[in-house]
Amino acid sequence: MGCQTDQELLGIIEQVKPLAARGKVADYIPALQAADQSNVSAAVFHITRGRDACVSAGDIEQKFTLQSISKVIVLALALIDQGYTNVFQKVGMEPTGDPYNSMIKLETSSHSKPLNPMINAGALAVTSMVRGDSPDERWRRILHFVQCLLGGKAIGYNKEVADSEYKTTDLNRSLCYFMKQHGVIDGDVDELIDVYTKQCAIEMNCLDLSRIAAVFANNGRDPQSGNILIDEEIARICKTFMVTCGMYNASGEFAIKVGIPAKSGVSGGIMAVVPGKLGIGIFSPALDERGNSIAGAEILKIMAKKYHFSIF
Amino acid sequence: MGCQTDQELLGIIEQVKPLAARGKVADYIPALQAADQSNVSAAVFHITRGRDACVSAGDIEQKFTLQSISKVIVLALALIDQGYTNVFQKVGMEPTGDPYNSMIKLETSSHSKPLNPMINAGALAVTSMVRGDSPDERWRRILHFVQCLLGGKAIGYNKEVADSEYKTTDLNRSLCYFMKQHGVIDGDVDELIDVYTKQCAIEMNCLDLSRIAAVFANNGRDPQSGNILIDEEIARICKTFMVTCGMYNASGEFAIKVGIPAKSGVSGGIMAVVPGKLGIGIFSPALDERGNSIAGAEILKIMAKKYHFSIF
Amino acid sequence: MGCQTDQELLGIIEQVKPLAARGKVADYIPALQAADQSNVSAAVFHITRGRDACVSAGDIEQKFTLQSISKVIVLALALIDQGYTNVFQKVGMEPTGDPYNSMIKLETSSHSKPLNPMINAGALAVTSMVRGDSPDERWRRILHFVQCLLGGKAIGYNKEVADSEYKTTDLNRSLCYFMKQHGVIDGDVDELIDVYTKQCAIEMNCLDLSRIAAVFANNGRDPQSGNILIDEEIARICKTFMVTCGMYNASGEFAIKVGIPAKSGVSGGIMAVVPGKLGIGIFSPALDERGNSIAGAEILKIMAKKYHFSIF
Amino acid sequence: MGCQTDQELLGIIEQVKPLAARGKVADYIPALQAADQSNVSAAVFHITRGRDACVSAGDIEQKFTLQSISKVIVLALALIDQGYTNVFQKVGMEPTGDPYNSMIKLETSSHSKPLNPMINAGALAVTSMVRGDSPDERWRRILHFVQCLLGGKAIGYNKEVADSEYKTTDLNRSLCYFMKQHGVIDGDVDELIDVYTKQCAIEMNCLDLSRIAAVFANNGRDPQSGNILIDEEIARICKTFMVTCGMYNASGEFAIKVGIPAKSGVSGGIMAVVPGKLGIGIFSPALDERGNSIAGAEILKIMAKKYHFSIF
Repeated sequence: MGCQTDQELLGIIEQVKPLAARGKVADYIPALQAADQSNVSAAVFHITRGRDACVSAGDIEQKFTLQSISKVIVLALALIDQGYTNVFQKVGMEPTGDPYNSMIKLETSSHSKPLNPMINAGALAVTSMVRGDSPDERWRRILHFVQCLLGGKAIGYNKEVADSEYKTTDLNRSLCYFMKQHGVIDGDVDELIDVYTKQCAIEMNCLDLSRIAAVFANNGRDPQSGNILIDEEIARICKTFMVTCGMYNASGEFAIKVGIPAKSGVSGGIMAVVPGKLGIGIFSPALDERGNSIAGAEILKIMAKKYHFSIF
Repeated sequence: MGCQTDQELLGIIEQVKPLAARGKVADYIPALQAADQSNVSAAVFHITRGRDACVSAGDIEQKFTLQSISKVIVLALALIDQGYTNVFQKVGMEPTGDPYNSMIKLETSSHSKPLNPMINAGALAVTSMVRGDSPDERWRRILHFVQCLLGGKAIGYNKEVADSEYKTTDLNRSLCYFMKQHGVIDGDVDELIDVYTKQCAIEMNCLDLSRIAAVFANNGRDPQSGNILIDEEIARICKTFMVTCGMYNASGEFAIKVGIPAKSGVSGGIMAVVPGKLGIGIFSPALDERGNSIAGAEILKIMAKKYHFSIF
Repeated sequence: MGCQTDQELLGIIEQVKPLAARGKVADYIPALQAADQSNVSAAVFHITRGRDACVSAGDIEQKFTLQSISKVIVLALALIDQGYTNVFQKVGMEPTGDPYNSMIKLETSSHSKPLNPMINAGALAVTSMVRGDSPDERWRRILHFVQCLLGGKAIGYNKEVADSEYKTTDLNRSLCYFMKQHGVIDGDVDELIDVYTKQCAIEMNCLDLSRIAAVFANNGRDPQSGNILIDEEIARICKTFMVTCGMYNASGEFAIKVGIPAKSGVSGGIMAVVPGKLGIGIFSPALDERGNSIAGAEILKIMAKKYHFSIF
Repeated sequence: MGCQTDQELLGIIEQVKPLAARGKVADYIPALQAADQSNVSAAVFHITRGRDACVSAGDIEQKFTLQSISKVIVLALALIDQGYTNVFQKVGMEPTGDPYNSMIKLETSSHSKPLNPMINAGALAVTSMVRGDSPDERWRRILHFVQCLLGGKAIGYNKEVADSEYKTTDLNRSLCYFMKQHGVIDGDVDELIDVYTKQCAIEMNCLDLSRIAAVFANNGRDPQSGNILIDEEIARICKTFMVTCGMYNASGEFAIKVGIPAKSGVSGGIMAVVPGKLGIGIFSPALDERGNSIAGAEILKIMAKKYHFSIF
């Protein structure tokens, strides 16, 4: 099983670093635009190595916001809260060739059901299904769930990012009102947007992210305590969506070229899962033209080849 | 020139009345659903007959809300307020084969510009361009403009309809947020929706509507006072849109079969213009499957044939 | 009534000539690409001036192929041959915001019916409805019909253009096979393409084209012999389509800005009709980005303003 | 490792048999429509059991045509013939939410490149890339490749099915001409259609199909001779497409619910691969509304649960 030492991982990071210069940091809000384009950090969390679990390299203290990576985590929570049938009555399971923020398929598909929970419309619908008597409770349960996945570590969100997204995310509002009209979601749209933008702004470093990935790799069990945090079945569903729709419109290509279940976010984070073996957390904010971390995706490609991590 | 007497018009109404039973009253809000399906009323306003201008028949006291008919009127006002260039920088001039509330073309067209001012997205953008320091002032200017077109008659709006639409019109909110994201509109969406739902709820009878139509027929001049209410050029633009996109997705067919510039609303009203001759106001709430008054459209078809009203 | 002398028309042509330099000659086949970009010629055929009917200016001997202009003429013939009901069972009447060669609406509309007879799919379906026991007979009947519209003048087609288009028009083949699968057309596709490419390659000069336009302007009657060549009703239908969909994706804008029923072709020809008054034939091969003759459209805009030719 | 005996497999077949009555046999050509709706047969080919490799149950002598299952096999051949770069220059790697025969994405995507090799457009492009100096040679190489995958067994195609599809497959012709216009394919369309309809009509039983699946399961090696028939990398690519787009518009759902790489055909066949373990061939012609064998898909679902076959 590969990537046993910090040194080994550092070698890979050195190899991909030049790529970062070719990408482009997300610039739709100032807080993201401020990221240092040259940053690359990664961590690998081995589920069977106990205290010695974590291998890491690069600027590992650097925090970043989860953005779309949160879609997988909140999907797990919504499935825990509402069950398979309820969740998939509102959200589909099919990949789409359209952009993650497209409305076209909403309009042309029957029931205006979002095609899957990894596009924005689907993710918004999923967040609306998290249990809670108020938006605030929903938000606290999401944050608490993330903290559980981190073994109880206190974690917060970046208020500046959340506020900034809340103010500018009119496209997501548009998707919500469309779904509200068609009965996919109900309740107050701005309250939902508030929870969603906070969830996207949850902040951590690559070490933390690799630990969450390790829970998925370990079929939902905490790799340290052995406690079941996510049902095995639900963990499996999440990993499947990471393969079919985790890397935006490059998901199919990524499955072919890399074959590791992974979910990326516009901040430059990637959470990747090698089932039964390890979890990977990566941060490198320079994005390719489809919104995936350019150096981050390359790290996974190298690992897949070197350590035979592809699930196919 | 045709349709000279109430008796003549009544004959036509009797002829189309059975059709009303085949249509379906709009039912998306209770206030519209309450309409009497069998109602048919019509008025013809001759621009050159002075005091004797108006011919009418049917239940002519019956009021109805303008709904989409207001799109033509507010377009005229926006053109007066902002000029041709400003308005058409935000809204296109092309008919579309898509439904009036579709988002697809917004997403696929360059600049996310609504294709024309008769679809909802375009009409909302037009309303946002009416001059005024506040939503309330914009709304009062719209109402005042309608009253001018009616020779100063006091006219109001149906608060129940407006409130009801305001609460349920999430699809229009969706369109607005989409356009806001892309810079087509700015400002507060709910305030715009408030003005728009009020404009759609302006209430009048077929006599009133025929008088407004007569202003357009008279190249923008008040047919009684002779005052210029709308620039000739602007009146011409409005009539053109009535031909190319006035009857929802049946506009092309209506141009072929009838050939009279007309704009219909989901309440069952139709405003039709025979240039240089007369204006027509019709109300009959039973709609065909494309949202046009079924008996109303037939009245115009009969008139077009009988009196050679087609502009083609 | 305007444009009485060659001199007057020449003045307009001089005015628009510089525009031609800004356009771009169609280059998808060599025969079209060979056109002289600076060419501008125009003719006006007054329906009530007898022997003195024709006013013209520019390089009026210059021949050009009809291309899409033929769609209107063949629609008239198909309507004569098959009647209103049969033709419009296969082809719709609605304008579309999509490009003239788009397949999207075919796929998303019910019955895969082309939206209107001015887009390629619709025009191909219309050509397939011209009566004839063989493709050759259909083609001879089309050519004969055009000759009738020209008062019996012998006219032919440009074989080089037709052959060249036949070889390269795979997109039209694609449209045909799609329609064949869905029962909109039947029979051999290549035979239909053969007739269609010939019809598009019919060759004439602007004088000829203005005479055909004059037949439409005269409600289907030959302006010289007085014979009925096209039913009044059919002539009216053709003029209506020229308004709603005659100028490709600029039809709506052209209706607003000019208001004259017109059909353009990619060769740079435009046939325009001022109902009850005159027919116009224009040739100038430099096209704007939407495929309309840039100088030709401007000639009509100037005429509309100067002589009040708008039908609105 | 599961499914060790015929008896065990028979139990599963008995369990799903009632489902077949709920589906619908493909009826677009007579030869497919003639299938016996109640048929269910399946075979499992264990890659490591030598002579004793095959477990089977049901009417295993029943032959069926490969239809879309051939897309995976011919993709492997095209990749062998032309290499990764050439193939994926013409065909994409992304799943699509559109139907397998849709043209919309062709029109809206850049370069008119089919989104993936499992939709018809992509599969046609792939077939056009099989090496050969003539269509006939291309076809013989495809057939020979299938025979190699079957350990040299002589295999043929159903001429009645191929002829019937050749005559009626105008939608595929439409896709081809569209791609030809845009340079995705070249050469004669009817010749390509001829090869493609033959490849779809290759006929075998479930035992044969399970053996082909076993080659993929064995990373491209013949499970009996040990010879490399397909490069490991290419076998991996094929399995990945089976996950992301193998089950038509239910691929995402199938990945979630079953998690076994699989490709289905409209004849009712399914080829499924449990990597490193076994290949599965199934035939049951009653289809669900998305075109997948209803009993066949259920067999895989039961196996996935019972034997933990999911790759996720």
